[in-house]
Amino acid sequence: MTTQKPKSNSPTRDAAPISASTAKEGLGIALIGTKFMGRAHSNAWGKCAQFFDLKRPPRLVVASGRNAQETAAFAAQWGWSRASTNWRDVLNESAVDLVDVSTPNHLHAEMSIACLEAGKHVACEKPLSSTLADAKRMVLAARAAKKKGVQTFVWFNYRRCSAVAFAHRLVKEGKLGRIFHVRATYLQDWGGPETPLLWRFQSDQAGSGAHGDLNAHLIDMARFITGDEIIEVVGAIEETFIKERAIVSAATDALASSSKLKGAKVPSKGSGKSTVDDAVLFLARFKHGAIASFEATRLATGNQNRNCIEINGELGSVKFNFERMNELQWWDHTLDAKLRGWSRIMCTDAGHPYGGHYWPAAHVVGYEHGFVSQAADISAVLGGGASVVPLPDFEDALKTQCVLEAAIRSAREHRNVPIRELDKF
Amino acid sequence: MTTQKPKSNSPTRDAAPISASTAKEGLGIALIGTKFMGRAHSNAWGKCAQFFDLKRPPRLVVASGRNAQETAAFAAQWGWSRASTNWRDVLNESAVDLVDVSTPNHLHAEMSIACLEAGKHVACEKPLSSTLADAKRMVLAARAAKKKGVQTFVWFNYRRCSAVAFAHRLVKEGKLGRIFHVRATYLQDWGGPETPLLWRFQSDQAGSGAHGDLNAHLIDMARFITGDEIIEVVGAIEETFIKERAIVSAATDALASSSKLKGAKVPSKGSGKSTVDDAVLFLARFKHGAIASFEATRLATGNQNRNCIEINGELGSVKFNFERMNELQWWDHTLDAKLRGWSRIMCTDAGHPYGGHYWPAAHVVGYEHGFVSQAADISAVLGGGASVVPLPDFEDALKTQCVLEAAIRSAREHRNVPIRELDKF
Amino acid sequence: MTTQKPKSNSPTRDAAPISASTAKEGLGIALIGTKFMGRAHSNAWGKCAQFFDLKRPPRLVVASGRNAQETAAFAAQWGWSRASTNWRDVLNESAVDLVDVSTPNHLHAEMSIACLEAGKHVACEKPLSSTLADAKRMVLAARAAKKKGVQTFVWFNYRRCSAVAFAHRLVKEGKLGRIFHVRATYLQDWGGPETPLLWRFQSDQAGSGAHGDLNAHLIDMARFITGDEIIEVVGAIEETFIKERAIVSAATDALASSSKLKGAKVPSKGSGKSTVDDAVLFLARFKHGAIASFEATRLATGNQNRNCIEINGELGSVKFNFERMNELQWWDHTLDAKLRGWSRIMCTDAGHPYGGHYWPAAHVVGYEHGFVSQAADISAVLGGGASVVPLPDFEDALKTQCVLEAAIRSAREHRNVPIRELDKF
Amino acid sequence: MTTQKPKSNSPTRDAAPISASTAKEGLGIALIGTKFMGRAHSNAWGKCAQFFDLKRPPRLVVASGRNAQETAAFAAQWGWSRASTNWRDVLNESAVDLVDVSTPNHLHAEMSIACLEAGKHVACEKPLSSTLADAKRMVLAARAAKKKGVQTFVWFNYRRCSAVAFAHRLVKEGKLGRIFHVRATYLQDWGGPETPLLWRFQSDQAGSGAHGDLNAHLIDMARFITGDEIIEVVGAIEETFIKERAIVSAATDALASSSKLKGAKVPSKGSGKSTVDDAVLFLARFKHGAIASFEATRLATGNQNRNCIEINGELGSVKFNFERMNELQWWDHTLDAKLRGWSRIMCTDAGHPYGGHYWPAAHVVGYEHGFVSQAADISAVLGGGASVVPLPDFEDALKTQCVLEAAIRSAREHRNVPIRELDKF
Repeated sequence: MTTQKPKSNSPTRDAAPISASTAKEGLGIALIGTKFMGRAHSNAWGKCAQFFDLKRPPRLVVASGRNAQETAAFAAQWGWSRASTNWRDVLNESAVDLVDVSTPNHLHAEMSIACLEAGKHVACEKPLSSTLADAKRMVLAARAAKKKGVQTFVWFNYRRCSAVAFAHRLVKEGKLGRIFHVRATYLQDWGGPETPLLWRFQSDQAGSGAHGDLNAHLIDMARFITGDEIIEVVGAIEETFIKERAIVSAATDALASSSKLKGAKVPSKGSGKSTVDDAVLFLARFKHGAIASFEATRLATGNQNRNCIEINGELGSVKFNFERMNELQWWDHTLDAKLRGWSRIMCTDAGHPYGGHYWPAAHVVGYEHGFVSQAADISAVLGGGASVVPLPDFEDALKTQCVLEAAIRSAREHRNVPIRELDKF
Repeated sequence: MTTQKPKSNSPTRDAAPISASTAKEGLGIALIGTKFMGRAHSNAWGKCAQFFDLKRPPRLVVASGRNAQETAAFAAQWGWSRASTNWRDVLNESAVDLVDVSTPNHLHAEMSIACLEAGKHVACEKPLSSTLADAKRMVLAARAAKKKGVQTFVWFNYRRCSAVAFAHRLVKEGKLGRIFHVRATYLQDWGGPETPLLWRFQSDQAGSGAHGDLNAHLIDMARFITGDEIIEVVGAIEETFIKERAIVSAATDALASSSKLKGAKVPSKGSGKSTVDDAVLFLARFKHGAIASFEATRLATGNQNRNCIEINGELGSVKFNFERMNELQWWDHTLDAKLRGWSRIMCTDAGHPYGGHYWPAAHVVGYEHGFVSQAADISAVLGGGASVVPLPDFEDALKTQCVLEAAIRSAREHRNVPIRELDKF
Repeated sequence: MTTQKPKSNSPTRDAAPISASTAKEGLGIALIGTKFMGRAHSNAWGKCAQFFDLKRPPRLVVASGRNAQETAAFAAQWGWSRASTNWRDVLNESAVDLVDVSTPNHLHAEMSIACLEAGKHVACEKPLSSTLADAKRMVLAARAAKKKGVQTFVWFNYRRCSAVAFAHRLVKEGKLGRIFHVRATYLQDWGGPETPLLWRFQSDQAGSGAHGDLNAHLIDMARFITGDEIIEVVGAIEETFIKERAIVSAATDALASSSKLKGAKVPSKGSGKSTVDDAVLFLARFKHGAIASFEATRLATGNQNRNCIEINGELGSVKFNFERMNELQWWDHTLDAKLRGWSRIMCTDAGHPYGGHYWPAAHVVGYEHGFVSQAADISAVLGGGASVVPLPDFEDALKTQCVLEAAIRSAREHRNVPIRELDKF
Repeated sequence: MTTQKPKSNSPTRDAAPISASTAKEGLGIALIGTKFMGRAHSNAWGKCAQFFDLKRPPRLVVASGRNAQETAAFAAQWGWSRASTNWRDVLNESAVDLVDVSTPNHLHAEMSIACLEAGKHVACEKPLSSTLADAKRMVLAARAAKKKGVQTFVWFNYRRCSAVAFAHRLVKEGKLGRIFHVRATYLQDWGGPETPLLWRFQSDQAGSGAHGDLNAHLIDMARFITGDEIIEVVGAIEETFIKERAIVSAATDALASSSKLKGAKVPSKGSGKSTVDDAVLFLARFKHGAIASFEATRLATGNQNRNCIEINGELGSVKFNFERMNELQWWDHTLDAKLRGWSRIMCTDAGHPYGGHYWPAAHVVGYEHGFVSQAADISAVLGGGASVVPLPDFEDALKTQCVLEAAIRSAREHRNVPIRELDKF
């Protein structure tokens, strides 16, 4: 096994190593992929046991990336015991109980299936895959693995914003009544003409653009909160506004893919064709009658990370905007008319999902805490406990994948696309 | 002429009547229709000369409605010199220069055409008509009238919210650059299952539901602000959530159509079928490349009158929400990244459109002032002057009507509908 | 009587004059003062009978100002039957039932007392006076007049924002429980160093600066909403940041006092001393235990007309910001903790004070409607009816005046000032 | 040394221990106090090296608390190598470079002075102390220690919210010009009558109530952002609304002091007297002419953790509300009047202080990140580098302490209190 002993610059204990017996009680994690999501997941595995009381606290066994030096540094920084440049190492690593697949979308299928076949639980980054065919292969593998007690998870992290999870609960308790409308937009603005031809604009690596990246989240959130399923896509627009972008070096690409993306000034080497969508909009119908609109874009100037969903029901409505992620807007239509108003609930109370685990009320949490809560929930489930709110598995994520695919077909074929056309095996 | 001498309870002058010569300088107005829009327009004609310096201040000559007693009371209250129960009276009334058609949509064509043929200017309530065929007949009449110096206007009042007019100017000055996105929603919530079968839910009287009422405004605002035209509707949903509603008496209907609509408790006489849409959503493409979404609904619980539009351009973005109508949200993308933010501009300054005409800065105005500003602009134009921002005429309103029609065809025929299919005569 | 026949450019009726008997039923109004408040009051008297069903609709009898030509134009524009340049004319005018005193503060006492002695009802602009001594003289006159059925009113217009009136009702119904905190700030920013030495910066004409102009409103609102009285001022700061300002001509001053104030570029004639406060802050105690802070300033850059009050009680809290005057923020502390939130109530419903009188729900109103509602309430009361919420009379306004005085004493004498030191006659 | 080997349930490395040489490069930390602040600081020391590139990454050597079992569990959870029940152990521990004093205020002086005398750097929780006399003793010790290269820090964590740090920079760059107003309120609502007599309501343990807890933050933020010093307190109110509270067991108190404070239902054992303030308000003057108001309270129902500051300058203004801590409201008064507005800047960009260290733009951070950033800055400074924005030392914190004291004297003695009366040694 090609491992690297990390030279740590991270916070460390200078005491004796944790004994094997202690370690055994934990949940051994391997991470594949060390970019943005690799960071977010590492942070989550590393913190969750500090905020949640877990029977199987995660052990950060091995992190795997392509570049030896970078991966070693990454492992050291985030507390992974070993670094590896061959992801297949994790298949035979007995200390690993779960593999976290945080690589680009087109690699999800191969890696996840191999891990499941090796008897490892898998937590795969969203969307499930870059093609519907791959996604279905993953589900078949998940079904086979499930029979052996092996579980799958998908990192739809926004379910674990307290406000989103609370919206889910309100719907489940019947507080919204019959649902009429779902209105979902995920707006970003980093994809202007000045942004170079990063891998995210190349379909062979990224699968899709804003659609797979952002609409995947919206579809999952809409399904999660409503508890309902989309049955038809009714019209869609797929658009690539910026058709040519400046070509840059791989190093610049890597840098730009990190958190320093924005504002990076890069030397151009001519221009190349962007082969992904900049924006996808579509309309849809839910099984129980709600009608919905979805929009994902990287060119909504002024909206840096505006992941918004509003749901209107007969008895009440909820609204969420990730840029103010600690807040849920709630409208109680059963109140006397003169006392009705959009109520800004700070979802940081002990009574809110995940609310009691972090800091006192209104001592707000951030983006990373959705991942921490998901890592805690996965650990809890694999320790025989329950998650705070439902976790999406591959089977569940396939439903989201079908809607993504239906939207693209609708946009390209100019017709309504029923989901039943896509979800058969 | 069937006129009623109103018993006034309105503010009056107890001096001698204004001399004929003075009156002659003004602009003689006749109003047809005395319900919600009749009130709003009466207020506008009555106030505009107090806030704007007008060469031809409006004279409120005659108000026409169906019920003699009600119309007389209405005329007295709002300062109309005479009341009439026959709208055709206005055709031969020499003191009338302009007829304000504020009746239900299906009456617009007949009335407007008759008035134009009689040589009267016409200011017609939006949407232009309830059918595309009628709308085209109105345009033909307007074209013929125009040759004789007779003008047409349509009451798209939201253009005259200072914030909307200011957005129009910003785009015109190039401050947004190339436009990528238009996102427009007009959300109301008074159409729940408890609301009875008012005339607004009956297609023979109302033409359409939320679509003609609310999407008409959105389409006009989108065209006005961007200065661009929609060329294709790409998918649409037309939905009637509440298919049966309680039947009520005509009196109740009349009452409910007034400002007391909300919360009216009404005795039921069984139920009848609602024949209009509760909600219409559609996607569209603009000529210069922007992509757009539109949504109108009466069942978005929690949104009483949320007329919103957001436009994202390469250099900047604007956002408007009528519920905070004095404010325009403005994003200047040309600023240094660390100083960029959504900026809440109170559009009440002397430098804003209509800003200097009412009260000092941040002494906010309301819904009615859009009408007042439009009445002032119409009076200015007919007095040989200029409007503060462009006024829509029948020709212009037909473009909006074509988009309304395209959306319905798209929803019913499940296909993309290009506007060129509809705008031919 | 020096009257001018106005050359009207205002909306007019071209019918016969209203008969004397009709006129007699109304409420004859005389206005003294034709600047900013004169405009706002004229608009209010002229509109109130269109939105409220009044037994004694106002008749706009005579407007009085100093400049003959300007006053005549003003009267014509706002629908006053006559113009006068001698305010004492109104004392003997039998058609006048009520005199509206809209002049600068130092003139309130002389005019109001004369009118009361002549048997006219008086509606005086706030603050009651520029000195406590004058204010007490006015109260004595009001007491004497009251015995003869003559009434007094003070234009504390913000009480009649629907949101403020609704807050008053919530407190009255016990919805806030014991009140702990009152936090009131009225922030403006037009008083920067570029603003010249207008009359508003000269204490002999203006009485005080931000204090009398803005803190007067805050104190009245705090008293009105809580139903409680301030008993002590505990520390205060009175500050004139800009000690010298450019001297300008009287014409410029007049212009600048109008709604065109902001941004006026004016030719300087050297500089003079500003003799009023730019800002006054003070702390206070209420009779029933609440503690409070007040701040008025003209130099809070970024705050154009931010009249805010927040009140925290044991069972709930309310928050109001005039710049979003249609909204009341309401916190219901009796709800389950996880459902608590600041609720944005659009106070435009039929169930809200004044809500049913204007436009449908969420068709927002503006600054001027507070005056219209007050004119309606005064007319209602003088017609034998009731006001929607309590109207302040001179007796009531004196309580506000005492607090203003106590704050100034506290600031200048560096001590706590109990109100009982000031309110004796 | 009474140490406990923690039974870890935290994320761990199952590799060999970090070598001594590696450890030596780091910064050895000891923590005294394991309650709310102990948790927040532990998290900060543990995470900072993952987000910042540090020459001396913290090593978590020992955590000290009073209860052996609890402290051992705490140490295990947060990654401290050892646990101790005797805080004096840290004085002789060579691996410890810095002692983090996170105990109640009345213990700060004794502990900090002992640590400084032992040659340890000290990072003390705010406020500096519970008495001015103690605070001065701490400063004297800090001065003596400084000569030996030993440094002091105080945990005024809000300075390190990116938005607050950015406001500091804007002022420093002259973007606000002359400052007129500082308006600071820290509003909480957990101190209602239902809350029992926790130690926080007992002056012998807590020193003061809302004043030391919350006003300390406001004063520090005001000084930090403006770069100016308060020279006089002009009036103050100190109030204990709830004079008697239910007595509870020590265990309940401990529980209630944790993050589960809110909503804790506790068995009463009769009632006792609350001996701290519930709220303190005061007015103040800054050296360079700004005037200011401060308010801290635990009874502002509806405000869970509303730490707000607004600063108005001649050229611009800033506004911060911790409940939306990623945002700074910025008003640029140098813009053309019609483009001015309050601009909501998401301070998460690479160009903002701390912005580039966490997640991509608008992937918001939370309460804990202020502590993480402060831990990173302390580590950077002790590693020979620079902090991102200035760190407060004891000398600096004494200035805040003097203002706290002046406010109390002003409230009790009913007079203006100049700071020069208090800051002498």
